[in-house]
Amino acid sequence: MTSQNTQPAAEQYVVGVDFGTLSARAVVVRVSDGAELGSAVHEYRHAVMDRELASTGKRLPPEWALQDPADYVEALKETVPAALAESGVDPSQVIGIGTDFTASTPMPVLADGRPLCSLPELADRPHAYVKLWKHHAAQPQANRINELARERQEPWLSRYGGVISSEWEFAKALQLLEEDREVYDRMDHWVEAADWIVWQLSGTYVRNACTAGYKGILQDGRLPSREYLAALNPDFASFAEEKLDHRIGQLGERAGGLTEEAAGWTGLPAGIAVAVGNVDAHVTSPAARAVEPGQMLAIMGTSTCHVINSGTVAEVPGMCGVVDGGIVSGQWGYEAGQSGVGDIFAWYVAQQVPGRLEAAAAEAGRSVHEHLTELAREQEVGAHGLLALDWHNGNRSVLVDTELSGLVVGLTLATRPEDVYRALLEATAFGTREIVEAFVDSGVEVKEFIAAGGLLKNSLLMQIYSDVLNMPISTVDSQHAPAVGSAIHAAVAAGAYPDVLAASGAMGQVTEARYQPDPERAARYDEMYADYRELHDHFGRGGSDVMRRLKRRRREVLG
Amino acid sequence: MTSQNTQPAAEQYVVGVDFGTLSARAVVVRVSDGAELGSAVHEYRHAVMDRELASTGKRLPPEWALQDPADYVEALKETVPAALAESGVDPSQVIGIGTDFTASTPMPVLADGRPLCSLPELADRPHAYVKLWKHHAAQPQANRINELARERQEPWLSRYGGVISSEWEFAKALQLLEEDREVYDRMDHWVEAADWIVWQLSGTYVRNACTAGYKGILQDGRLPSREYLAALNPDFASFAEEKLDHRIGQLGERAGGLTEEAAGWTGLPAGIAVAVGNVDAHVTSPAARAVEPGQMLAIMGTSTCHVINSGTVAEVPGMCGVVDGGIVSGQWGYEAGQSGVGDIFAWYVAQQVPGRLEAAAAEAGRSVHEHLTELAREQEVGAHGLLALDWHNGNRSVLVDTELSGLVVGLTLATRPEDVYRALLEATAFGTREIVEAFVDSGVEVKEFIAAGGLLKNSLLMQIYSDVLNMPISTVDSQHAPAVGSAIHAAVAAGAYPDVLAASGAMGQVTEARYQPDPERAARYDEMYADYRELHDHFGRGGSDVMRRLKRRRREVLG
Repeated sequence: MTSQNTQPAAEQYVVGVDFGTLSARAVVVRVSDGAELGSAVHEYRHAVMDRELASTGKRLPPEWALQDPADYVEALKETVPAALAESGVDPSQVIGIGTDFTASTPMPVLADGRPLCSLPELADRPHAYVKLWKHHAAQPQANRINELARERQEPWLSRYGGVISSEWEFAKALQLLEEDREVYDRMDHWVEAADWIVWQLSGTYVRNACTAGYKGILQDGRLPSREYLAALNPDFASFAEEKLDHRIGQLGERAGGLTEEAAGWTGLPAGIAVAVGNVDAHVTSPAARAVEPGQMLAIMGTSTCHVINSGTVAEVPGMCGVVDGGIVSGQWGYEAGQSGVGDIFAWYVAQQVPGRLEAAAAEAGRSVHEHLTELAREQEVGAHGLLALDWHNGNRSVLVDTELSGLVVGLTLATRPEDVYRALLEATAFGTREIVEAFVDSGVEVKEFIAAGGLLKNSLLMQIYSDVLNMPISTVDSQHAPAVGSAIHAAVAAGAYPDVLAASGAMGQVTEARYQPDPERAARYDEMYADYRELHDHFGRGGSDVMRRLKRRRREVLG
Repeated sequence: MTSQNTQPAAEQYVVGVDFGTLSARAVVVRVSDGAELGSAVHEYRHAVMDRELASTGKRLPPEWALQDPADYVEALKETVPAALAESGVDPSQVIGIGTDFTASTPMPVLADGRPLCSLPELADRPHAYVKLWKHHAAQPQANRINELARERQEPWLSRYGGVISSEWEFAKALQLLEEDREVYDRMDHWVEAADWIVWQLSGTYVRNACTAGYKGILQDGRLPSREYLAALNPDFASFAEEKLDHRIGQLGERAGGLTEEAAGWTGLPAGIAVAVGNVDAHVTSPAARAVEPGQMLAIMGTSTCHVINSGTVAEVPGMCGVVDGGIVSGQWGYEAGQSGVGDIFAWYVAQQVPGRLEAAAAEAGRSVHEHLTELAREQEVGAHGLLALDWHNGNRSVLVDTELSGLVVGLTLATRPEDVYRALLEATAFGTREIVEAFVDSGVEVKEFIAAGGLLKNSLLMQIYSDVLNMPISTVDSQHAPAVGSAIHAAVAAGAYPDVLAASGAMGQVTEARYQPDPERAARYDEMYADYRELHDHFGRGGSDVMRRLKRRRREVLG
């Protein structure tokens, strides 16, 4: 549904650019009503470097994932002009640009913002590059960060559900210090790509409140103490104050005006508002009109990220983080997540579906996913007799344990491929319900559930979520929701709206209560969820350590 | 290996006929050394009637499984002459015939042995036919039999691991009484097909000690009491004494001489020895030279049956039964079983293996089973990180619970089809180890493991069993081992050997210690078996009732 607005005297437009893992996407959006008028996508030249450096061919160790920041600028040059051209909008009517990024995706830069990897003498040094969010080689550092924080009872730890991820700023910086001291010493700032791209556009370095809070352990205006950092590594004592600390920008604020150089890259007028940076999941909230307290937004793709606002701060077990102004300025923003969702369905289709079904799907002119979904759709709740745990990629929330694994129980000689497929769909819905209940039990109200992302196209999955949660599910139909969210922030930064809430109300697009729970199915799923929770707690909360032993044994044997 | 014997003056031969679920198989065997000289197979004309009666088209309810006894006689007429012809043996040199059958496979007959289903006026009455072993419609009666026996603390219950199966004689007879009183009243004898076929060959009705003990609750010479049966149903009070009780024949005894009529069917000389009947699994023991105390024989196919002798009687939890002379006269014969083995592997290949592997198998000129086996063979123990419970068809021993189901844990996005396949192979090996340990823990020595049956062809599976059990595994290489076992019984019945032990030593064929455990793999499997046992006890012994709830819910929804 498009919201109704009074039209401003002359139409104005904003541009949003969403920087994903493999590509960037720009949209041109009308300020008055959020209509999407043009878009363009560009795939990064060097994609993800996880085997070798593109420039020199240097081999990378396992678990590394790097990017080249020059690819981000190239993506700006490609996508913004193309989206403008498609939209037919006169660039002079564009009043602002906003961006969002994967996170935590930090890089070491000089005082003027130049990435260290752009210096010829450091081009062969892996630690000089951007460490993409899924760079997992800092796990030993993360383990020490967590152990020491628990030992010292650091007050910020509970704001992250008790666990600091190896994906975040501190673990990756400590790895840099300990593995390439020269690069560490030459670094003036440890900058999130989300803020670096804004720096390139506006000439101004502003740390956005979202990444600073969720990924940079900025809580109540403070970073981890010098004493704590020194206990991690004496040479790390000054990291926060010297390399990290900087001006914080609230979401929707103007970081600065578009520079002449960036105007040249993008074809946009110099001087227009450049919004403070943001994270791809969180920025989707205003696009989905999910900015009021109690509205949980789930961005459902290969994994799922859940974000929700609340007027109060609470300690929710296993959440990824709670940050003041982390989603919308003036509210506490909460984040949680499921580390495998679409990934699990894709694994199943690739590894466990027989050829006769692949052939039947082809004959019916649909994908294997669609075919399995249609077969599974006909079933009554509980008819397959199966129950699964959705931990094929570990558990992010609420258990925060990468050593957990997937499980299927109830298998018989009568079990069919579509039965297991449906059980996996349901398992991810139960996993979402665990998260919703963890919030509610901790005093964070969840009164509406809004879904965005690629998995929306599976209507059976969405109906199962509605039945399992026993809640209506609203949907975000835009294919470019994060980029639209960035454009909404640009409109606020340009002063077209007083704040993100107002802009979201005018420009966000959501189909309300598109899926309604069925009372009978919901009652059956209540029973199955009790069984899910029994397995969840048995394998996840210490009843059995079988999953951890299986992973350890696998590592021993393979290593 | 062929055993060495002194040759008798003139060669003598025996015939063995194995009556399976879908077909019968005859072999002609040399008495002196057990050499197999000819064989023939015949598929029953009406196979298994599980949807309708072949004669009249009458529909059958779910869970029924009937056969027509005329098919058994036809199979005799087809297979014995054909096997004789292939062997080139002069029928006059044949000195005996032995048979074995599926069990419990009982039928109602008149005093002269005529099956009630052969009477034209009863041809449309399902209860007049043979109830095949896998007729499962008497479960309500079996439940009452077990509840009442526990309540009254009937002394025979412990001889069956605490559970009387719905497949056995009493449950099926009680169903007959309660559902078709007229047929029940006209029945003079409730006869196992194993004994009925001997009756047809010899003109003599002798109940073999094996089915009478394992399937007919004959213990210490007594059947269940009149009081117990009256408490089940007042009209059932006289069942044992009037319809069941009869002369018992020990295994290897001569039931009688071949009748003129049966000589005409088979082409064998009238008057030669007809051995007392037997059960297909148990009769395999002498063919495998597995007749001494402590030798466990596993007949491994779609399911696995384990038989072992001991000098003493013990109560082994969850065994199928212990019977005096049940395998070899003079010893206590124990039976246990796994209700799904090859069936589980077949289910996996049919339902969970992607087309690219089916294509690769075809290209390599091997079956999907062979292809998965070769891929799985390369793995180190524990490398797949998986663990499965082999209960896709319930658990027969040691838990005796059809409500249990299969489970796989340890699934990740990196799990491949061959990983799960190997985990399923291993799960059945762990299930066998549970059985072996239950025997050992109960004081029944297991000093040798001998395998027979169709699964022998998978050398990886056999090596896994050897490593998991940490025992050498001897193998029976004959494709017709049960029929050879029947032939060995015929040789004893004919007086060619003093007893089954002597005949087994001369005529049985086994490759000793063909598979040897590897100490390193065995040590790793010890660890994994501890994990298996943890899951086994959690889901099977009351830690979690999830499996039972899933099955109940499935029935509710589908029913």
